[in-house]
Amino acid sequence: MRRKSEDATPINRERLVAAALALVDEEGGDALSMRAVAKRVDRQVSSLYNHVASRGELVELVRARIVADIDVSAFGREPWDVALESWARSYLTAFAAHPNLIRLLATTPIRDVSTFAMYDAVVSSLVSSGWPIRDAVAVMRTVEAHVLGSALDIVAPSDMLAQSAVPPELATIRAALDPEHAESYGAGPAFRLGLEALLTGLRVRRQRAEASVGP
Amino acid sequence: MRRKSEDATPINRERLVAAALALVDEEGGDALSMRAVAKRVDRQVSSLYNHVASRGELVELVRARIVADIDVSAFGREPWDVALESWARSYLTAFAAHPNLIRLLATTPIRDVSTFAMYDAVVSSLVSSGWPIRDAVAVMRTVEAHVLGSALDIVAPSDMLAQSAVPPELATIRAALDPEHAESYGAGPAFRLGLEALLTGLRVRRQRAEASVGP
Repeated sequence: MRRKSEDATPINRERLVAAALALVDEEGGDALSMRAVAKRVDRQVSSLYNHVASRGELVELVRARIVADIDVSAFGREPWDVALESWARSYLTAFAAHPNLIRLLATTPIRDVSTFAMYDAVVSSLVSSGWPIRDAVAVMRTVEAHVLGSALDIVAPSDMLAQSAVPPELATIRAALDPEHAESYGAGPAFRLGLEALLTGLRVRRQRAEASVGP
Repeated sequence: MRRKSEDATPINRERLVAAALALVDEEGGDALSMRAVAKRVDRQVSSLYNHVASRGELVELVRARIVADIDVSAFGREPWDVALESWARSYLTAFAAHPNLIRLLATTPIRDVSTFAMYDAVVSSLVSSGWPIRDAVAVMRTVEAHVLGSALDIVAPSDMLAQSAVPPELATIRAALDPEHAESYGAGPAFRLGLEALLTGLRVRRQRAEASVGP
């Protein structure tokens, strides 16, 4: 039975993914259900199953949509640390545009092949640069965690940490949050400082591993 | 008007905070409203306002409850980097127990004084160890972001990254996810590798700043 109000625009996977992404952006990951997506595209829920098998498949299609925005072109072209930095910045931009996806995608088992292809590019670059294969996933994973935590901080309101909210007796944090330091204490500068430190630390670890093995 | 079913247990702030925390744990941050908390403690919503002024105040009371579990005792007692590491581990444990709080607390402007007291302990330790005050908040903030991103990874299902889900043609990531490397590629080991690298990088930055200023 077609509902009177039913939209005439043809339904397809791309349109369902766009509707799912808009739904998560507006209402959060918990709101994502086949029923809610059907309502958004003005269709019966049963008709969605001609295009996607399940909510789980829809989540993986949304993941693929976001991963498509993450630039992995530096891997294989640039040294591993330079590539990792450019990947991290691109990854941050992709998720900061969709903060409600962070929790959903960070805690749903990955089945999307394009995500594994991205990981293959990262891990291949690390391994061919001499990283032991047993460390490669952990290196990639900790950079991802750093990026996702920073993305949450970046989407926080600008008065997240406000000097005016600090009582006078907490003099040091109050002084550190003086607006004259605003260019360095924001979430963006903190991300850049942290990413630089993380990469420095990874370079040190890589050099030590090399030194202990010999040429 | 008292409802017949009304619970006889006296209501107080502590009980409201516990109810709010349980609600967020079970249903997510978006589900937190004065109405939903009232329902949990079996009271009229109006009676809650005798104890907390608003949803915002309730969020800050929940923040204080979590911050109370984070150990800052190492600051002032241990060198800044050792203290930062112990703080980060304690911070991770507190949030991994309540993953739905991560997004809520990371994106709600901080008004809770105990949180600022924690930050004062961190920043004071950094500044008295020679960190420039303009960098102190960024250092603290990037460690927090690293911890919160890692906490999300740690609460993910164990098959988040499963070799069996990787197609055979992606040979490198498939090899890296071989179960023989499971002890190093998990979220926990990745957090420890990343935190160690981040702290190494921060030490390098600190030493360079010192060298450029002189003794």
